[in-house]
Amino acid sequence: MVGRKLTHRLIRDGSLAGRRIEALDLHDIILPDRPEADGVDVVTHAGDLAAPGAVAGLAVKRPDVVFHLAGIVSGEAEANFELGYRVNLDGTRLLFDALRESGNRPRVVFTSSIAVFGAPFPDVIPDEFHPTPLTSYGTQKLIGEALLADYTRRDFFDGIGIRLPTICVRPGKPNKAASGFFSGIIREPLNGLPAQLPVPRSVVHTHASPRSAVNFLIHAAGIDGARVGPRRNLTMPGVAVSVGEQIEALRRVAGDRVAALIREEPDAVIWAIVQNWPTRFAANRARDLGFASEQSFDDIIRVYVEDELGGALPG
Amino acid sequence: MVGRKLTHRLIRDGSLAGRRIEALDLHDIILPDRPEADGVDVVTHAGDLAAPGAVAGLAVKRPDVVFHLAGIVSGEAEANFELGYRVNLDGTRLLFDALRESGNRPRVVFTSSIAVFGAPFPDVIPDEFHPTPLTSYGTQKLIGEALLADYTRRDFFDGIGIRLPTICVRPGKPNKAASGFFSGIIREPLNGLPAQLPVPRSVVHTHASPRSAVNFLIHAAGIDGARVGPRRNLTMPGVAVSVGEQIEALRRVAGDRVAALIREEPDAVIWAIVQNWPTRFAANRARDLGFASEQSFDDIIRVYVEDELGGALPG
Repeated sequence: MVGRKLTHRLIRDGSLAGRRIEALDLHDIILPDRPEADGVDVVTHAGDLAAPGAVAGLAVKRPDVVFHLAGIVSGEAEANFELGYRVNLDGTRLLFDALRESGNRPRVVFTSSIAVFGAPFPDVIPDEFHPTPLTSYGTQKLIGEALLADYTRRDFFDGIGIRLPTICVRPGKPNKAASGFFSGIIREPLNGLPAQLPVPRSVVHTHASPRSAVNFLIHAAGIDGARVGPRRNLTMPGVAVSVGEQIEALRRVAGDRVAALIREEPDAVIWAIVQNWPTRFAANRARDLGFASEQSFDDIIRVYVEDELGGALPG
Repeated sequence: MVGRKLTHRLIRDGSLAGRRIEALDLHDIILPDRPEADGVDVVTHAGDLAAPGAVAGLAVKRPDVVFHLAGIVSGEAEANFELGYRVNLDGTRLLFDALRESGNRPRVVFTSSIAVFGAPFPDVIPDEFHPTPLTSYGTQKLIGEALLADYTRRDFFDGIGIRLPTICVRPGKPNKAASGFFSGIIREPLNGLPAQLPVPRSVVHTHASPRSAVNFLIHAAGIDGARVGPRRNLTMPGVAVSVGEQIEALRRVAGDRVAALIREEPDAVIWAIVQNWPTRFAANRARDLGFASEQSFDDIIRVYVEDELGGALPG
C-alpha cells in the first residue's frame, strides 16, 4: 500500500532528492502494476528477493536510490517462522550484498518498524531506548537495521532506516491484524459502515497517515547522511492519541452520526496484544532532521478524506 | 582462551546446573585438545560452523547445555568482512537452526560483547541503552543476540546472552589488539618484562578476569529462565577503573619495582580507538540475577597471579 502510494508520488513529482527521475524499477513478489509516466523508464519485476539471482537484476541497474519496503508482515512472519526469516532477513541481506558488490553506493531507505521495541516501556520511548522485539517480524527488522548501519559505516552504501509508527487511516477492507481497529473505527464510519472497537478508549497509540509515510520515505531519500551520523535508524514522529481522542476527532471532523457507528465490543485477545505495544515516542532525532507527521488526529482523518474519499465527507 | 578454561572448570566440577556431566562435545575451527576426564565421554570436533552439515553432528547429540563462544574476533571481522559475517552470523544462525530442528530445547549460553555498544555514551551505560555497534563484530554479536531472544521466545531453545566486558588479565603473549595494553601493563611487569602504555592514565574501562568470564558462563547455564524474562541479553558486571588505578593496584599487589616496568609511550592510533569505547556499565539486571565479578582491580591481579603464575609474585 505504501509502496504503491510512493510510486505514484515519485511519478507525480518527477524528481527525487533534487534530481530528475529517469528510471524506476518496481520489484514485488507479484508483478506490480506498471504506472504511466512520461519520460520515465519504468520496469516492473516479480519475484522472491531471497531467491537466487533475484536481486542481481536490480543492483546491475546502478540505482541512485533504493527503497526497501516490508516483505512478510508481522502476523505472517509469526505464523510462518521460516518464511519470515527467509524473506525479511535473507531477502534484505541479499539485496544489501548485491548493492555492496555493485560498488555503486546508492542511498538505501529501509522501512523498519516500531515493532523493534518490546514491552515493558517507559511512558515516552526515547531515541536511545533499547530494541527488544517480541515478535519475529520485529527481530527481522532489528537485524535489517543492524546490517544497514554496518554496511553504511563500511561505505558499501548510504543507508537510512525509518521506523514507521502505525499507519492510519489504512484504506481498503478491514483486515484481521490486531492493529486493524485503529484504522477501522475511522474508515468504516466514514464509509457509512459500523465499526467494532475491541479495546478500552484509554488505549494510547502513535499514528501517522499513509501520506506521512510516503513523506518520510521521500525525505529519507534526500537527507544529508553526514547530518545523520553513524546511528542510521530513526524512530519516525507521529500523533500519539488515545482511542477516545481518535473518536472525538472523528466526531469533530465528520459529526455525531458518523462517530455513532462505532460499537464497543471488547475482545480480550486483541486487548492482551495491544497492552504490549508502545504508546508514545520522543522521535527527537527524526524531528531535528526534518521528518514531520501530522500534528493532530483530526489532520490524519482529513488526509484520509482527501486522499481516499476525494475530499467528500459522508452525509 | 575462555573456552579452554571453561572446559577445565567443567571437568573439575564434574557437574553443571545441578546435574552430573556425562558427555562433553568440544567443537572448534581447529581440533581442540582432548582433556582427560574420568567418566565423561569427551568428543572433540574440528570444522567451520558455517560449513554445510557442521552443526548437525552437534545437535544430534541432544545436549542439555550449549556454550557458543566467539568465532572471528573483532579485528579480523573488521579486516575480512565476508569471513566475519559467514562465521559470526551464518555460523551462529546455522547452530541455532540445528538446535531448533532437533526439538531438544537446550539451554544455550551465547557470549556476546560490549562491542554491541557504540559511542557516544552516557557516563554509565544503563541496561536499557540502545546497542549501536561501530564494528562489524559488534553488529554480528547484536544480530546473534536478536536471534537468541527470538528463538527463546518461540521456545526453540532457552537462551541467555552474556555481554562480556574486556577480559583482563589475559594470559599469554602480547597481541596487536587495540585493547591489548589493558592486560599487557599488568601481565608483562608481573613476568619481569617491560610494558608499553599507549593511552593517558585517565582512560576508564571495565574489566573482568578470565575466571569471572568462566563463572558468568557457568552461572548462565544454571539460571532460571523465568527469572530472566524475555530480555535475554545481559550486560555482565565488571570492575570499572582508570588506567592509573590499574597501575596503583599493580603497585599495591606486586610492589614499586614491578609497577616501574610500565613505560608511557603514547600511540595516537590506539588512543583514537579507545576513546570510542564504553567506560562504565550499570549491569544491574545481571547483578540482580546473581552474576558477580571481582570487586576491585587488586582482585583481578590476584586472580592472574593465582591462575597463571601458580600464586607466586615476582622478586
